[in-house]
Amino acid sequence: MVQLGANRYGKAEVRVMRVARGAGPGGIGDVIRDWNVSTSLSGDLAATHLTGDNAAVLPTDTQKNTVYAFARRLGGVEPEAFALALAAHYVTTQKAITRARVSIDEYPWEPISAAGHSFARAGQHTRVVTAIHDTDLGPSLIGGIEDLVVLNTTGSEFWGFPRDDYTTLADAYDRMLATTVSARWRMRGTEADWAATFAAARAALLEAFTRPSKSLQQSLFAMGTAILAAAPVICEVRLALPNKHHFLADLEPFGLANENEVYYAADRPYGLIEGTVLADDAPDPGIAWT
Amino acid sequence: MVQLGANRYGKAEVRVMRVARGAGPGGIGDVIRDWNVSTSLSGDLAATHLTGDNAAVLPTDTQKNTVYAFARRLGGVEPEAFALALAAHYVTTQKAITRARVSIDEYPWEPISAAGHSFARAGQHTRVVTAIHDTDLGPSLIGGIEDLVVLNTTGSEFWGFPRDDYTTLADAYDRMLATTVSARWRMRGTEADWAATFAAARAALLEAFTRPSKSLQQSLFAMGTAILAAAPVICEVRLALPNKHHFLADLEPFGLANENEVYYAADRPYGLIEGTVLADDAPDPGIAWT
Amino acid sequence: MVQLGANRYGKAEVRVMRVARGAGPGGIGDVIRDWNVSTSLSGDLAATHLTGDNAAVLPTDTQKNTVYAFARRLGGVEPEAFALALAAHYVTTQKAITRARVSIDEYPWEPISAAGHSFARAGQHTRVVTAIHDTDLGPSLIGGIEDLVVLNTTGSEFWGFPRDDYTTLADAYDRMLATTVSARWRMRGTEADWAATFAAARAALLEAFTRPSKSLQQSLFAMGTAILAAAPVICEVRLALPNKHHFLADLEPFGLANENEVYYAADRPYGLIEGTVLADDAPDPGIAWT
Amino acid sequence: MVQLGANRYGKAEVRVMRVARGAGPGGIGDVIRDWNVSTSLSGDLAATHLTGDNAAVLPTDTQKNTVYAFARRLGGVEPEAFALALAAHYVTTQKAITRARVSIDEYPWEPISAAGHSFARAGQHTRVVTAIHDTDLGPSLIGGIEDLVVLNTTGSEFWGFPRDDYTTLADAYDRMLATTVSARWRMRGTEADWAATFAAARAALLEAFTRPSKSLQQSLFAMGTAILAAAPVICEVRLALPNKHHFLADLEPFGLANENEVYYAADRPYGLIEGTVLADDAPDPGIAWT
Repeated sequence: MVQLGANRYGKAEVRVMRVARGAGPGGIGDVIRDWNVSTSLSGDLAATHLTGDNAAVLPTDTQKNTVYAFARRLGGVEPEAFALALAAHYVTTQKAITRARVSIDEYPWEPISAAGHSFARAGQHTRVVTAIHDTDLGPSLIGGIEDLVVLNTTGSEFWGFPRDDYTTLADAYDRMLATTVSARWRMRGTEADWAATFAAARAALLEAFTRPSKSLQQSLFAMGTAILAAAPVICEVRLALPNKHHFLADLEPFGLANENEVYYAADRPYGLIEGTVLADDAPDPGIAWT
Repeated sequence: MVQLGANRYGKAEVRVMRVARGAGPGGIGDVIRDWNVSTSLSGDLAATHLTGDNAAVLPTDTQKNTVYAFARRLGGVEPEAFALALAAHYVTTQKAITRARVSIDEYPWEPISAAGHSFARAGQHTRVVTAIHDTDLGPSLIGGIEDLVVLNTTGSEFWGFPRDDYTTLADAYDRMLATTVSARWRMRGTEADWAATFAAARAALLEAFTRPSKSLQQSLFAMGTAILAAAPVICEVRLALPNKHHFLADLEPFGLANENEVYYAADRPYGLIEGTVLADDAPDPGIAWT
Repeated sequence: MVQLGANRYGKAEVRVMRVARGAGPGGIGDVIRDWNVSTSLSGDLAATHLTGDNAAVLPTDTQKNTVYAFARRLGGVEPEAFALALAAHYVTTQKAITRARVSIDEYPWEPISAAGHSFARAGQHTRVVTAIHDTDLGPSLIGGIEDLVVLNTTGSEFWGFPRDDYTTLADAYDRMLATTVSARWRMRGTEADWAATFAAARAALLEAFTRPSKSLQQSLFAMGTAILAAAPVICEVRLALPNKHHFLADLEPFGLANENEVYYAADRPYGLIEGTVLADDAPDPGIAWT
Repeated sequence: MVQLGANRYGKAEVRVMRVARGAGPGGIGDVIRDWNVSTSLSGDLAATHLTGDNAAVLPTDTQKNTVYAFARRLGGVEPEAFALALAAHYVTTQKAITRARVSIDEYPWEPISAAGHSFARAGQHTRVVTAIHDTDLGPSLIGGIEDLVVLNTTGSEFWGFPRDDYTTLADAYDRMLATTVSARWRMRGTEADWAATFAAARAALLEAFTRPSKSLQQSLFAMGTAILAAAPVICEVRLALPNKHHFLADLEPFGLANENEVYYAADRPYGLIEGTVLADDAPDPGIAWT
C-alpha cells in the first residue's frame, strides 16, 4: 500500500513589472520594480491527489491573479514585505491551506534619463526573497542574491592539499579566482529596512571576496561572516560558489612567456563550494529553508 | 560570534563519454554512455574555511580525474552502480571525508546504422542518479528522470475548486494537459537490475499519465503509485510537474469556431505541482535526499 | 544626411499547438502539430520609421491572430504549405506589404498510448521551414532541420593538414566525430509531398554522416550531396556543423590505458564547418535566403 | 551533378581573459578584457570537401592557439584592432586562405576595490566586433552591441494602424515600451578611437530611445540616426529590436483600478522590428556583412 507524502502546488514565475509614477528622487520620474514571483500552497490536499476532488485547491490561476492584485494594493514595498504579506494572505483566507511560500526574484534597473521615465537593465545580480507563512509556526524570511559574477586577478592561492593516486594538480600560489555568487540569508525577524539590509549584505560579501584567499572555502567563510557582521537581522548565510576556472593559456610552444596575463575561461567542469555560516545565537531555522 | 555550518565541495558537470567497443547486440558495434557527473565531499573541513589550511581538501581537479579513471576501470556499468562505487571510494580512501555524493545525468542515444558505430541523441529524457555514501550510515541511492515532456489531448478536467475574490478561472471539463516530468525515486537497497528498474519506472509513469485526470495532483499520485508498483526496489517517489498551460486560442472575433483544436502554448507563468508518494513500508530516508 | 535601408517587422515565436481529432492511423486518436511560428512583413514602411505614421503597419498583434486563425482554417497541413499560404495572404491583402516571410519550427511528438490521445516529445530534432512571398518575385521555400545531434565512434580521421607556428595538433587516424546538424534546403518549387521530402532528406543526411570521414568538411559535402540525391525537389543545401570535440581522457598518470574508450565531451571552443552544396541546375536563389 | 558552393570553417567561442597588470588608472590595479572570439577561414578549400585532402585546412585547433598567442602579442588593444590584426594574419600567412573573419564578444566588468584587482561583471550589455580581411578587397569592420535591455515607462504610442479581419488590438496612447537592443554598425575605415566610438554609439542610441515614440520603428530610426551623428566613422547601422511586450494587468474583476501601474511582462510571442539606417554617403558594404 502507498501513502501521500509532502506536497505543495502553486503558480511559478509570475512576471510583474510595477511602476510607481512620480516616486523618483525629488518626486521626479518613476520607480520600477521588476519581479518574478512564485507562490505555492500546502495543507489538507489529500483529496485532490487521491480522488480528484478539488474542493481545497485554490487554482494556480487565482494565485497568479492575486500576485497582480497585491502588486496594486501594496504599492511600492520591498520584495521582502510583499512576500510576507502575500504568504500570510493565503493561510489566513483559505481554511485548507496551512502553509504558503512566496519567492521573488527582483531584477535591478537603472535610470538612463534625467526625466526618470527611461531605464536600462543593470545586469549585475538578481535579488531574491522567500517568505513562508505557516498557520502554527508563523512567518519566516530568507533573502539573498544570485548571478553576481566576481573575479580576483591576484591574491588567490591553493596549495597544501592531499595527493592521492589521481592527483595531478600543481600547487597554485597566484591563481585567478572567479565565481558566480549564489547566497541566501535567513532573517531573525520580519521587520527591518530591507533595502538597506540587502545593500549592506551585498557590499559586505563583495568586500570579503576581495581579500586574500587560500581556498574558495576560506573566501566563502569570510563572505558569510562579513554578511552577518554587516546586517544584524541576518542570522545565517548559505553560499554556493562555483569555481569558474580560468587556466593560464600555454604559450610555450609558440616561444611566448605568459606571466599571468592570458587565461582560458573554462565552462565545465567547475568546482562547486557550498557552505553555511551561522551566528552563534541563530535561532532554530524551523521551516525557513523548506 | 559565528560558526561554520553544513558544507561540502566538489567538481560539477564532468562530461564523460564512454565507448564499449564491440559490446553491441550480437557483439556488433558499440555501446555508448554519455554522462554528466558531479561529485561532492564533506567531512572534517573546518580548517580550510577558517584558516585556509587545505590539508584535508582533496582537489576538485582530482575528483575530475577520478571520474575518468573510474569510467575506465568500472567499464560498462549502469550509472547507479558507478555512482555507488565512486561515492564509496572517497569515504574509504580519504580520512577526512565522511560523506561523498555522486550525481549522474545520463543522456540517451540510439544507433543510426547497422554497423553500430553511429548514433543520434534520443532527446526524450535524461536519466538521473544520486548516490551518497556516509561513513556511519552507509550508502543510499536515488534514481529518476528529467525532461520527459508529455501531453494529453483529452481526458483532463479541473473543476469543483474553491473561489475567492481573485478567482476568475472557469471550470474545465476537457482541457489539454501537458507537463515536463521531473521524478526522483528512492531505492530500498543498492543491488538491483538498474536498467530494468529505470525502464519499468519510466513505462509505469507514462502509462499512469495517460489515465483520465481531474487534477494534475491526481495524475501525480497515480504516477508515483504506478512506479512503486512497477519496481519493488523503489520505496518513495518525488515528483515535480510543471503544468505547461495550453490555452484555447480565441477565434470568435474572426467568426471561427475552435472546438478544442487550436491552442496557444504558454511559457510563463506555469502551475507547479510537487508531491511525494511513499510505500507504507518505506524505510526512513536518512540522508538519501540531502 | 541619412536614409532608411532594408527593414521588416513582425511577430516572432507564436506558439501554436494544433490537434486534429480522430485523424490518427485508422481514424483512432489524434494528430498533433507543435509549431513556433514567426512572421515578418516588408514593403512601403518608410512613414512609420520617419514620422511615426502607422497607416501601413498591420500590427504584429494581428499577425499573431492570423497565425491562430490560419491554423484553424488550413487544418492538418504540413508546415511548408502553411508557411506558403500565410506568406501569400499578407502580400495579397495588404497593399503596402510587398514581401512576407513566414518561418516555422516544428517539434516532433510520438504517441504513448494505443488510444492515441497521449504523446511524448520526441526530442531528436526540430523541423524548420521558411517561406517568402514577394509581390513581384512570387514564392520561395526553404526547409531544414535543427538540433539533430549525431556521433561516430570510429571511422573519422583528420591528418595531412598544414602546420604553422601555432600548430600543435597531432594527426588523428581514428577520432570520435560528433556534431549538431543545422541544415537548410532550398526547394525548386512549391508543390511536393513535404512530409516525404523531409523524411527523405533527414534519412539521407544521417546515412551520409555514418560514412568514413577524413574531415568534417568531407562529411558535410557527403550530407549535402545525399540530400540532393534523395529529394529531387531540393536544389541547394546549406549546412552548419559544429565539431563537438570529444577528447580522449589522459589516464596515463594513473597507469591506465585508454584505447579509445573514455572521452571528455568539451563545450567550448568548438569547430564550426559551414558549407553549401548545389545541384548543377539549381535556379538562382533570388530572395529565398533573405 | 552537384557542386560545392560558399563555405568556411573555423573555431568558435574561444574564451579569452586577458589581464593587463598595473594598467589601471594611475598605474594602480589591473585592466581585464573578457572576450569570446570566433574565427573562420575561406579560400581554396574544395579538396577537403571533395576528397578529404586536408593540405589547405589549417586546423581549427591552430586557430584557437593563435587567438591566445595574439592576445599575448598584441597586449591591451581594443577588440576592433585585435579582430583586424588576427584576420589579416590568416590571409597573409596561409596561401590557400583568401578571406578570414574574426568576431569578438566583449563582456564588461567593473572594479570593486580600490586596489584594482577585484572585479564584478557589469551585465548591461555585450560589445561586439566583426572584422573580415579579404585578399582582394582588404579589410572591413563592424561594431555593435547586444543584450542592452531598455524600457520606457511612458511616452510610447501605437495607433493609426490598418485593421483587417484579424485585428483586435486597441489603439495605445501611452504604452510601456521595452526592448533588448541588438545593433551592428559598419565602419568607414579601420583606424579610429574604438573605445570612444563604442561609448559614443551606445550613449547616442540610449538617448534616442528615451525620446517620445509613435512606433518602435520610429525609435529604431532615431537610434540609427543618432549613432551616425555621434560617430562619424560609422556609416551604416542595422538594428533588431524585439518588442518585449508589457501588458497592463486586468484588475477590474477584483474591483481595482490599474492606471498604468501593474504590468505583466510577456515572454512570447514578441514583436520583432528590424531595420537599417545609412549615411547618404555610405560606401558600398562589399563583404562587410557576410
